[in-house]
Formats: sequence, C-alpha cells, structure tokens
Amino acid sequence: MGETDGVTDLLVPGDHRADGVLDDAAVLAAMLRVEETWLAALVVHDVAPPAAALPAGGLGRLVGDGDLAVLAREADDSGNPVVALVALLRARLEDAGEPDAARWLHRGLTSQDVVDTALVLGAREGVRRVRLDLATQVARLAQVVAAHRDTLAAGRTLTQHAVPTTVGLRGAGWLTGLLDADDDLAALEADGWPVQVGGAGGTLAALVAQAGPERARAVVATLAEQLGLRPVAPWHGRRRPLTRVGDALTTTTDAWGHLAADVLALGRPEVGELAEGAGGGSSTMPGKANPVRSVLLHRAALAAPAHLATLHLAAAGQVEERADGAWHAEWPALRALVRGAVTAGGHATDLLAGLVVHADVATARAHEAAEVLTAEQRSMAALAGPAPRAVTADADPASYLGLAGDLVDAVLVRAATHQAAHQAAHQTRPSPTPEVP
Amino acid sequence: MGETDGVTDLLVPGDHRADGVLDDAAVLAAMLRVEETWLAALVVHDVAPPAAALPAGGLGRLVGDGDLAVLAREADDSGNPVVALVALLRARLEDAGEPDAARWLHRGLTSQDVVDTALVLGAREGVRRVRLDLATQVARLAQVVAAHRDTLAAGRTLTQHAVPTTVGLRGAGWLTGLLDADDDLAALEADGWPVQVGGAGGTLAALVAQAGPERARAVVATLAEQLGLRPVAPWHGRRRPLTRVGDALTTTTDAWGHLAADVLALGRPEVGELAEGAGGGSSTMPGKANPVRSVLLHRAALAAPAHLATLHLAAAGQVEERADGAWHAEWPALRALVRGAVTAGGHATDLLAGLVVHADVATARAHEAAEVLTAEQRSMAALAGPAPRAVTADADPASYLGLAGDLVDAVLVRAATHQAAHQAAHQTRPSPTPEVP
Amino acid sequence: MGETDGVTDLLVPGDHRADGVLDDAAVLAAMLRVEETWLAALVVHDVAPPAAALPAGGLGRLVGDGDLAVLAREADDSGNPVVALVALLRARLEDAGEPDAARWLHRGLTSQDVVDTALVLGAREGVRRVRLDLATQVARLAQVVAAHRDTLAAGRTLTQHAVPTTVGLRGAGWLTGLLDADDDLAALEADGWPVQVGGAGGTLAALVAQAGPERARAVVATLAEQLGLRPVAPWHGRRRPLTRVGDALTTTTDAWGHLAADVLALGRPEVGELAEGAGGGSSTMPGKANPVRSVLLHRAALAAPAHLATLHLAAAGQVEERADGAWHAEWPALRALVRGAVTAGGHATDLLAGLVVHADVATARAHEAAEVLTAEQRSMAALAGPAPRAVTADADPASYLGLAGDLVDAVLVRAATHQAAHQAAHQTRPSPTPEVP
Amino acid sequence: MGETDGVTDLLVPGDHRADGVLDDAAVLAAMLRVEETWLAALVVHDVAPPAAALPAGGLGRLVGDGDLAVLAREADDSGNPVVALVALLRARLEDAGEPDAARWLHRGLTSQDVVDTALVLGAREGVRRVRLDLATQVARLAQVVAAHRDTLAAGRTLTQHAVPTTVGLRGAGWLTGLLDADDDLAALEADGWPVQVGGAGGTLAALVAQAGPERARAVVATLAEQLGLRPVAPWHGRRRPLTRVGDALTTTTDAWGHLAADVLALGRPEVGELAEGAGGGSSTMPGKANPVRSVLLHRAALAAPAHLATLHLAAAGQVEERADGAWHAEWPALRALVRGAVTAGGHATDLLAGLVVHADVATARAHEAAEVLTAEQRSMAALAGPAPRAVTADADPASYLGLAGDLVDAVLVRAATHQAAHQAAHQTRPSPTPEVP
Repeated sequence: MGETDGVTDLLVPGDHRADGVLDDAAVLAAMLRVEETWLAALVVHDVAPPAAALPAGGLGRLVGDGDLAVLAREADDSGNPVVALVALLRARLEDAGEPDAARWLHRGLTSQDVVDTALVLGAREGVRRVRLDLATQVARLAQVVAAHRDTLAAGRTLTQHAVPTTVGLRGAGWLTGLLDADDDLAALEADGWPVQVGGAGGTLAALVAQAGPERARAVVATLAEQLGLRPVAPWHGRRRPLTRVGDALTTTTDAWGHLAADVLALGRPEVGELAEGAGGGSSTMPGKANPVRSVLLHRAALAAPAHLATLHLAAAGQVEERADGAWHAEWPALRALVRGAVTAGGHATDLLAGLVVHADVATARAHEAAEVLTAEQRSMAALAGPAPRAVTADADPASYLGLAGDLVDAVLVRAATHQAAHQAAHQTRPSPTPEVP
Repeated sequence: MGETDGVTDLLVPGDHRADGVLDDAAVLAAMLRVEETWLAALVVHDVAPPAAALPAGGLGRLVGDGDLAVLAREADDSGNPVVALVALLRARLEDAGEPDAARWLHRGLTSQDVVDTALVLGAREGVRRVRLDLATQVARLAQVVAAHRDTLAAGRTLTQHAVPTTVGLRGAGWLTGLLDADDDLAALEADGWPVQVGGAGGTLAALVAQAGPERARAVVATLAEQLGLRPVAPWHGRRRPLTRVGDALTTTTDAWGHLAADVLALGRPEVGELAEGAGGGSSTMPGKANPVRSVLLHRAALAAPAHLATLHLAAAGQVEERADGAWHAEWPALRALVRGAVTAGGHATDLLAGLVVHADVATARAHEAAEVLTAEQRSMAALAGPAPRAVTADADPASYLGLAGDLVDAVLVRAATHQAAHQAAHQTRPSPTPEVP
Repeated sequence: MGETDGVTDLLVPGDHRADGVLDDAAVLAAMLRVEETWLAALVVHDVAPPAAALPAGGLGRLVGDGDLAVLAREADDSGNPVVALVALLRARLEDAGEPDAARWLHRGLTSQDVVDTALVLGAREGVRRVRLDLATQVARLAQVVAAHRDTLAAGRTLTQHAVPTTVGLRGAGWLTGLLDADDDLAALEADGWPVQVGGAGGTLAALVAQAGPERARAVVATLAEQLGLRPVAPWHGRRRPLTRVGDALTTTTDAWGHLAADVLALGRPEVGELAEGAGGGSSTMPGKANPVRSVLLHRAALAAPAHLATLHLAAAGQVEERADGAWHAEWPALRALVRGAVTAGGHATDLLAGLVVHADVATARAHEAAEVLTAEQRSMAALAGPAPRAVTADADPASYLGLAGDLVDAVLVRAATHQAAHQAAHQTRPSPTPEVP
Repeated sequence: MGETDGVTDLLVPGDHRADGVLDDAAVLAAMLRVEETWLAALVVHDVAPPAAALPAGGLGRLVGDGDLAVLAREADDSGNPVVALVALLRARLEDAGEPDAARWLHRGLTSQDVVDTALVLGAREGVRRVRLDLATQVARLAQVVAAHRDTLAAGRTLTQHAVPTTVGLRGAGWLTGLLDADDDLAALEADGWPVQVGGAGGTLAALVAQAGPERARAVVATLAEQLGLRPVAPWHGRRRPLTRVGDALTTTTDAWGHLAADVLALGRPEVGELAEGAGGGSSTMPGKANPVRSVLLHRAALAAPAHLATLHLAAAGQVEERADGAWHAEWPALRALVRGAVTAGGHATDLLAGLVVHADVATARAHEAAEVLTAEQRSMAALAGPAPRAVTADADPASYLGLAGDLVDAVLVRAATHQAAHQAAHQTRPSPTPEVP
C-alpha cells in the first residue's frame, strides 16, 4: 500500500506496531502462501500434472493488496474470503496462460483449510514477535530487579500500607509473570503450530479420491513441512489450537496489566516511587507527562479477556462438520488478541526500557511509615515473648523483610536460565523459517 | 480513497456495509468537524478574533485520509490521536498563512472532548443507519407475518416438537424483537446525542477564563447546535451515554440473533420450513447453498455481548477526571458494536428480503406430528371431563392454536403504528442534519 | 431456616444483604405464589371448579424450605425445578384431601411461565431494594456535594495532576451516575414488570381450550393484577424484559464502581483526600484500616459486565418456542446481577454514610501543586494576549475553576427534584404491593 | 446439614453434583484444614511451643457448618472470611482451655494465604472429579466411536449437507476434545497444586522473624506436604495458578459444549440420528422427551467463558501486594467455573452413557442425500479426467469417505493410550491423598 504501508487505526494507539500480523494484507499473503504451497505439493506428489506448477513468483504475481477491497466485499456473499479469492486466482491464471494451474488450484481443500491455516500462520508470527519482546523485557527487568534487590519500600495491600517490602521483590513479581507467560508461549512453539487440511467435510475425501490415502498424507505432510507447521488431523470443529493461543496471549496481557497497574499506582504524583521515562503530552496542558505506556497496557488488559471469552464461546459452539457462525466469530477475536498482544508487547518493552525507579523516595517513605509497617512485627514480638522465641520489635522496617531477598534471587536465577535457553534457541536456529511477509 | 473507498476487512465479511461509520476516515472527518465547528463558535462569540475564522473548506482542505497513517502512529505517543492532529493542523494552518486560526484552534478543548464528540457523531450515524434498516425489516417482516398469520406449524421447545403454533406467531416474535430494539434506539435519538465539552478537567476553565461563564455556555451551545447535538454537562468520567448506545445496539443484535437462530434451525435440510432466498456458495462443493446471512448474524450475536461487557467495564473503571486506560478501552469496543450492528443490519435486511417460507412443508409436518402436538390437548380434555368444562380432544393440530392469531394481530397493529411514526418522522424532517461524510 | 435465615456465602462478602432476593427460598416462595395465584384465577373465572380452590395458607402450607434440597436435585431430571415442584404439590394436595386442587394446579401453564414470572418477581424485589438504597445515597451524597461545592482540589487526568477542580464537582459526577442509574430503574418500574404466561408453546392453547379466548385473557389479567405485574404477550423467546433489567443494574454497578475507584485512589495513604469512615481490619496486621466498602464495590463492578454479557448472549441464542440452554443460562446470570446489585447497594450506602472528606488535605495539595495546576491557565493568558481577550495568569488555582460551581448546582437541583419525586411516590403509595417474602 | 447435606440450587439444575466442591461447607473445611495444618507445622518446627498443639479433632471440633451464616456475615466487615474465622477460632480455643493454640493460631499467615490455599484445595478436588468423569467418558465414547467407525452419515457444514462422513469420525472429534481437555487437566495435576504462604506482604516476614529463614521454609514445606501441595514462592499478586485452572476447565466445558451441540442438532425430530437415552419430561406435555443433558451442557458452555474472562480480568488487575477488588472478584468466578465443570462433567457422563446412535437413520439419510453428498466427487472426477488421474464418480456416498476410518483409528489409539495411563496412575497410587471432605 505504498507510503502508508499497513494498517492504521486511530482508535487503537500503537496498533501499527502489529503491522504484518493478521492485518488484511498479511491474511491475504498467508492465504496465497497456503494455496501456492498446496498446489506445489499436488504437483510434487504427482496428483496434479507438471503443467499445473506455478512459475516463479507464485500467486503473489497475480493478486495483491489492491485486490483487498474487492475480495473483502465478495467475502460477504459466501461468508468467507476464500471463495472469491479462488475465483479471482483462477481467472487471473487463465489470463496468464496457466490453465492447468487454474484447474488444480485449491483442489482438495475447503475454505476453512485456507482460513484456518492462514490464521495459524498469523498467530505464529504474532507469538514470535511477542516472545522477542518478552526476551527483551526479561533481560531489562532482571537488571532492574537485581539493582533494587534490597531497595526498601512500603508494602501495600488493598491500597493501604502493610508491611515492608522491596522494589526488587515487587519487580520479581512482574518478572515471574513474564516468565510464566513466556513458558506458555514457548510450549505453543515447542508443540508446533498445526496445519489445517480436512477438505470439505474433514475427511480429505477429494484428495484421497485423486491420490489415494498414502499420497494424500504425503501431500499434507509436504504442505505442513513447507509452511513450518505440524501435520495433524483436521480440527475443523475442534478449536483447542486457537483457544490455546488465546489463553497464552491473555496470560501475557494479564502479566503486562499487572505491571502497568503498579506503575500507574506508584507513579501517582503523591507517591512518585516509579515513573515512565518519557511521558505523553496533553493537547492543552503544557508540561503534562502522562504514563501513556502504562495507560495503553491497562487498556489492553481490560480488553483481552472479552476476546478470549469469545474464542472459547466459539469453541464451545462448534457443531457438525463446520459451525454456522461460531467459526466466523473466531476471526476478529483472534486477530484482536494477537494484534493486541503484539502492540502491548511493544508498549511493555518501551515501558521497561524507560522505567525510572525513585529508590530514594521509596525508601524514605518506608521510613516515614515505619510505625505502620512494623505494627505486625511488634505484635509478633509480643506474641513470641521472651527467649527462646523472642522476636525483635525493631523500629527499622528494613529489619522486617523476611525472605524478600531470597525470593528475588530465585526469580533472577529462573530469569537467567530462561534467557540462556532463549539465546541458545536463537543461535542454534541456522535458517529461521521464513515468516509471512 | 478512490476506488477502494473505505475499510476492507477480510475477516469480517460484510464489514464494508459500515463504510463511513467510525472507520478511521470517518473518525478523522468527525474530529475535523468538531475542531472547525468549535473554532467557528469561538469566533462567533468573539472569544477568538475574526482573523481566526477559517475560509471555506474548513479543516478538510488541510488534512485528509493521506494523513491517517502518520496520525495513527503519532497517537501512540500521547495515547490518543488528538495531540498529533492539533499539532498537524496548526502547522498546516501556519503554512497556509492562517496563523490566528492556528493559534486559536482547539483552545478550550481537551483531547477527550474531541474524541468523545467524534465517537458520538459516529454512533449517531451508525444508529441512524441501523434504524433505516430496521424500518425496512419491520415493513417486510410484517408482510411475512400477515401472510402466514394462520400457517400451521409444529411448535418446538428444547428442540423437540411441542404444541402447534403458526409461522406467523413465530415471525411475530422476531418482529417484536425488532420493534423493542428500535424503541430503544428511537429513545436515544429522541433524547438527543450529547456533545462533550469539558476542557482539561471537566470544568471548562480555559474557556471560562477566556470568555466568562455566559459566553462559555454560549460557545458550547453553538457547537452543539451546529453538530445537531444536545448541550450537556461534561461527562468525561460518567460514561452512561456510551453504555446506553451499547445496550441498545446489543439488544438489536440479540433480536437479529434470535431471527438467525430460527432460520438456521428451521432451514436445516431435514426441516426445510424456512430458507434464505439466495445461499452462499462453497469453495469446493458445487451447488451448495449456505444460509450465509443467518450465519453472519449468528456470528454478530455471539460477538456483541463481549464488546458490551468491555464498555460497561470501562464505565465502571472511571477514576478522577480522566481514566487511565478505561477511557481508551471504550474506543474499539464501541466501534466494534456500532459497525457490527450496521453490518448485521444489512445482513438482516437481506435475509428478510429473501426469506422463503415453505408453508406447505411446515403445515404438512404439523399434521404428520399431530399425535405429539396434540398430546397436551388430550390431557386437557381428560382433565376437563364432561361439560361444562369439556375440551375437545381433536386430532387436528389447527384446532389447538390458542390465541396465536390474536397475538399476531396485536403485533401487526404495533408494527403499523411504528411504521406510521417512522414515516411521519422522515416526512416532517425537511432538511436532515447533514451527517459526517 | 430459623435464626440463620437465608443464604450464606463465604466467598461473596456482604451477600447476606440480598437475603430474600432470588435465593432458593425466595425463588421457591415466588413459584408457589405464581401457582397458587394462578389456581385461584382459574377458579375465579370458573375454569376450574370451586372445589379446586385452596384453603387459607395456599401452597405454603404444603411445601417449604425443607423441600428445597429434594426439589433442586429433581430439577436435574427435567432441567428446571417446576416439573418436580408440580409433582410434589399434587402429591401433597392429594394427601391433604384436596384432589381437585391437585388436578387443576398448573393447568394451562408451562414450566417457563412459572420460572420466568418468579424471576421477574425476584428482579422486582431486587430493584426495589436497590432503589431504596439509591434514594438514601442520593440524599447523603447531595449533602456532601453541597458541603464541598467550593472545596478546591487538584484535578487528575491519567493519574497525573491536571487543572484544579473541586471536591463538590467530583462528587457531582458520582451523583449524576447514581441519578442516571435510578432513572433507568425507575423506568423499569414505571413500565411495569411483565407477567409470563404462554403455556406450552406460547399460544395459551391449553387455557383457551378450557376457557375460550375471552376468559383466557381474563385469567391472565387476574394473575398479573394479583401479582402486581403487567399483563403482556408471552415472551418465551424474546428476552428483552430480562436484558433490560441487566442493562439497568449493570449501569448502577458501573456508577458505584466509579465512586469506589475514586475513593480507592484518593484514599491512598499518600493522597488522603478521602477516607472510608470505618475501615476493615486485617487478620495479622494490627491497626490496619482497609477501604473494604470500596474494595467490595470494585469487585462488584468487575463482575457485573460478564454476567450481563451472558444475559445478552442468552437473549441472542433464543430459538423456536423455548431455547435449548440459552434460557437456562439466564437464571444464575440474572441472579448474580440482581443479588450483586443489592449487595453493592448496601455497600455503597455504607460507604457514603461514612465517607470522610479531608477538605484541608485536598485544598492544601492543590495549592502545593499550583504550578502544575495553573500551567494551562498561563498558556491561555499567553494565547489571549492583552485586552480585550486578556486572561489572568493567576497563581491561585482557585481562580481557575471555570463552571465548577454552576455544574455542581445543576446536579444538586436535579437531585432535589429526584428526591422530591421519590418521596411523593412513596407517600402516595397507600398500600404497597406485598412483595415476595 | 444432615440429610440434605450440601448445597441446593434451584436455578442451576444438577448443581448438587458438585456437593463438597467449593461450596461454603467445603471452603470452611478447607480453611480449617489450612489453619490446623499450619499450626501443627509451627509446633513441629518448634516455632510455636508444644502446648499450642491441637488435640485430636483439630479445629473441626470447634467450628462447623452451623457457624457458616455468622462467618459469612462477618466477612462483610473485613472483606474476607478469615478475619472472623480466626477470631472465632481463638475464642473457642480459649473456651476449650487451649490458650496457647489460640495465641499461635494463624501466626505468620495472612488472610490471602488461607483463602487462596483453600481455593486451590477446592479447585484440586473439582479437577479430580472432572477427570474421573472424563475417564469414564473417554472409555464409553471410545466404544461408541469404534462401534460406528464405518457408519455412513451425511456430513453437514453451515447446517447444510456437505460430503459424506461417518458417525465414528464425528464421535472421534468429540473424543479428541475430551482427550485434549484431559491433557490440560493432567498437566495441572502433574505440575502440582501450589500452596499459598506469603504472610502479610508476601515476604513471610512474620514467620521469618519468629523462626529464621531456614525454619520458615521448613514450615512452609511441611504445610505443603501435609496438604499434598507444591511449595512455591508466594503468588499473592500473580494469578496464573488460578487462570490456568480456568483455562483448562473452560477448555473442558468447550469440549462438552461441542458434544451437546451435535446431540441437540442431530437429535431434532426431523433428523433423529442421535438421541439421549432418557429425556426429561415436561410440566404440561405428556410424553415429551427433552434432551436435558445436552441442554444443560449447552447452558454450561455458554456460561463458562464469561467466568473465565472475569478470572483473567482479575489477574490483570493485580496491584501492589494485594489487589483492591480484583482478588475478591476471583472467588465466585473460580467457584462458578469449578462447580460448573463438575456439574457438567456429570451431565456429560450421563449423556454418553445413554447416548443412542440411530445408525440406520444416519445411513439411510446419507443415501437419500447421495446426489448432494457426492457433488464434489463428481466435480473431482471431471477435473481429474481420464487416467492416470481418473476419479470414480460414484453414486454411493460410502465410496467417498477419504481418510475417515484412518482418522478414527488414530484417535482410538490415542484414547487407549490415555486410558492405560489413567489406569496405571490410579493403580499405582496406593494411598490417595485424602481430599477435603
């Protein structure tokens, strides 16, 4: 789309960060990739004749972003974009003097195969980007946590001062959230992203009719291999592959929401223990510095669970060999979850990169509030009585931090292990699977 | 945007039906309209000097769809699109040799004023379109209901045959749903759409400082009048105006969902009592006719409640003078609800326009199932015993329809009254408020 | 259930405040009331013989809370509690020597008639209680707002200091939310709560067979009148009556959520501008005062939208003459919304009764932050330049309050009108409809 | 509570199936178990003196279901039930002449430790029951699938006839859903259920003050061991342990929803390919057989995603050391999810136990619809042309089943492996962890 290149969304600030992820151009590119890879597999396994092979440039020669508007409109007739896409491609192949390709294109597939596989490719790209951001965040946050392992701060429960804590332990909580989320996302990648090929009714009947069962399986395996996907049984009506993505990404957004909530609460002008490095401006108030990264993360955290609910609702509403609406309801919900997570991932990276810890403020406040923060300690001292159970009723909140330091250390060890695994994975991957453009 | 004109969305078939409603171009146009109308009002009331008046063409001369991508990206910095928009407009006004306009633009407003008023204008346009569709649907459905007032059919509860009913009574249920929904939407319009002007903190302090309280009120009144909105107290942190739109539109989508569910159930090949006039095709199965309108309406009905939940959640999460994320979460949720309803409105109109009632099938089935359908009648006859309470235990299900006909008639009267009111409203409106382009 | 009388719920603190509202005992009592009122109406209109009339004590003589466990278990067989209830009642009527009552009980009704009407009675009682709480809250909050009409405070947007505001204006925002919500609830009451009588398939066929159409209508009218409900057409598959309750109650919970969010934010120890009168204690930290009313209101505000989504989803999932699960999904969702609102209503009343405004803190902080709070004022002064548009760049935030006072006054006028209407309604109601026990 | 023993819920038919799972009595029992196990651990590790040890009977001697109502009411004061419970227990221990136990009870814990650990125990019990049901369902469904591996049926997409399929393949889809869900639940169990011990601020400060860090860890380890839980770092503000339960249980409910949707659709009177063995009756229509198990499963599937959304929303709303409402919002949402899954598990077991496959109807219909079902086959034959790619255009739909049989076989192998693992796990578990009563 030339200069504007990609999606713009005035009402979702930061949405451009997800350019290339399940936007219309990316979905179209993914669908083309599925169709051309499938056709090539048909030829390789001698299901389609050699003359059906596409020349260099595949289908991207023939259809592009300029066709999006028409395809989108025509999707209204059949309820999905594939029927119109296949018709357009066949017409253009005929025009290009490639009638065999036109005839064999899409043979053995059904619309859902193309849409679902394209969605999986989009989700994979989204998760890949989110994980890159998470790796950056883990590294950065581990530094912050280590630096403030022993920085005394007032703990707060239900908004009110409680017992002492440390900035490091609070950060270790955020860090654990990020690590937990990344473990879920890593499991998705480790298990492999599933291809979807089932044909009209999930039996691959058309393909088997043309190729017999053995070659039919080989064609599917080749498609999956070429796309870097896992060959699995058709899952037309069984949607765990998509809800699982939703669960993991919402878990990730939850973790960022927690981080943002703390920055918003502790960055209030009267608290001032944390700050975003560079705040956002106002349209009318000079000098205002708003915690915009945190605000937008909070927004994302409010929105994601509703989309997840829709994904699960759709999974639960499957019926027979293709659902009458529940399938269609997944598409925008999945897109919102994946793009929302990619966008939020960028915001969280920025937030952590610029995060300012006002350690002096935090510690000074803890000392000011020492009376309250050590109330429990005094009651424990009273309870324990004299030796052998004596507890010191110390006025210094720093003396009442329990296992805070040890808890921080354990999280830092986990983070280091995690980072090492991440780096190993990225170094040993010689030729990364080419992603959807 | 020339030929492609508007939004395309491969993953929301039919989305182009909502072109011009809260898409980026429409939001930008609405924001420009707010800014230019505001500036004019400042001049009219002598708050800004005459030299600040814009020449013909207003702000649309200076900023257009080509700027969307940049504005969207820059919205990321401040968390909303207005800061960047005002900066861009001021720069272009300077370039155009209109420095006074540049200086006075946006004075007295805050970002939220512009975004909220633009959202209201978008919601108004969406509701307007939905109501036009509803009027068409009511007219068409009233015909269907009248035509089949006495068409016998098997009633079904919990999917199983129950007592007899009529096609007309079933349709009267759909019709009542449409009328109820339209009553809610009509109330929104009758109460008037609220302008949002509160300035930086909801006090209009900047405007009052410049103009005094009386003229400040006059400026707001002029803005509201020019935009066809209702002048109201600032509602920065009180979001009932938006949740109310969400409630009414979800109610509308609920009504369409009910209609679609019946068409899907009764249009199954083994039932065949209803059919969409023109079904959608398959990418691989020749001759397949899918009930695509109903499928897409079912999709819409599954999705809307989640968006409504987000709107209410955002309303409940307001805090102080501007919420730290809850405000931002409203934007895409409201857009999804409004555009989703406009799109679904088109689908419902098409569905009803083409709806085929196979009266012969419905009636024949009722007779085939007479034994089951009249089981209650026989038990009532047994209960009633001989005269004076005797009940006929008739084998003819048509004799056991209770008030079906009367209930239909009452709904038809309501529909006729509703249509008359609609027509009167549209005839007596000599010069309709020009809508956002 | 003797002294403990009613529901206990360890996991929903405050739930006992909703005792008598849609808990099992209340639902059973309401169903009994529907059945006995219906039977009486059958006798009055000579559909059932005089011998079918119940003696004093109605059905409550025969079935009580001790039967709840059995009824609940048996509800599992037929999917709703009515089948088992009717069987139990008939058996007990036989045992009591009232065979005619046994025979005529429930004749003409279907399970959904009984459940839906009982739900409506429960919702009515819930709304009644919520409105009583709202009346108390409006009165109390109006006092707070009036007392602090001119109490200067720092305004905050996106958590950061913005322009000055007043405690009164902030409170006026909460008050407007309460008034808006009560308007919606009042409209529900003004329109009248609908009875549900449709018989097996929504045609009243059984009743008409026994009584003819005229008397059938009379029986329904008598039932409605005796229950204080509005006689309406059957709405078995058209669920706006319930979603409307949900919309209004969620709107109410939203308003309380906003109030609670402000108390939580402004009651943080570093802010200290607001406080709950009596905080809740900790299980381990002596002297801790938690803002428990606000915490529980925040909880309620987080939960309500999800229940509302379920109600709308159920409305959209209606099919044919009785839905195959969507009907059943409404019950706990409606109960959660209604009981949740009643409970939250009590919490909000308590919160406002005890709310402490630390006016001195609020004003002192505004003065401390004057530099920031008046930044916009200075930029407006620079913009306006010399007379005739001169704006004072005052260092005193109190000089930059715009229309704050006027906006407060307008809300107080609205509140006073609202209170007068409330009092008039309660005085002119000589014999209040007896509610479900 | 004697004979009625447990929860009754008129509005959630089948809820009694979850008796003992997170109902009030179970929550109380679990909290008592946490407190008494903790006190014992304090004594074992010589933190508390030997005199603080409880006699046989623990705390269950002192507090019981009769106290529930009072505890629930008092929970309103502090926002959770633990403060009142500890006060009550201490008073009763004093009365019982056990002052040391009274003094040391709960020392080192905070309310959240007790509530969260009790919730985990409840979730564990719920998951245990769900998995037992799933094991039964897998065994039964595998039989059905195997028996109908080759039973021809008409495939349906978007409600309309598509290509042929088999009853076995459709069942294999349900079976895969159950196996996928059980894998997630098994992973929860394999990873171990986490104990929650953090003390007032998540640092274990009180315990460390009394016991030093080493013994503090030992006390936590003993508690975890005695409860069969995994000792982990405090997760007060990091809620993945609960959202993970929610994700897995919603996934399970999704799978049952899919099964129910098929039974409802294919059990319609005009279709008749499936039936529930024993339908539920009507309150007015003699002889009606409603698919009540499926209806209630559909209800459960509609409700679960909303509760899951609340759980994630709460996770994302964590702030500082204890959230101001987001924590509290989890409790009823988790309870609804867990109990809802247990109830639905029973319904699904019953449904599958009684499921009737009308193989003759399914196959006869496929033959009747052969023209439609084989349309794709004919188009493939036309496409393939003569040898070597010739495809038979057969009129027999049974000739166009693709890989259906192989796909079924693969799922049956997976089910057999799964069952073997299940049986091994249950046989090698000599003394099952005693569950909360």
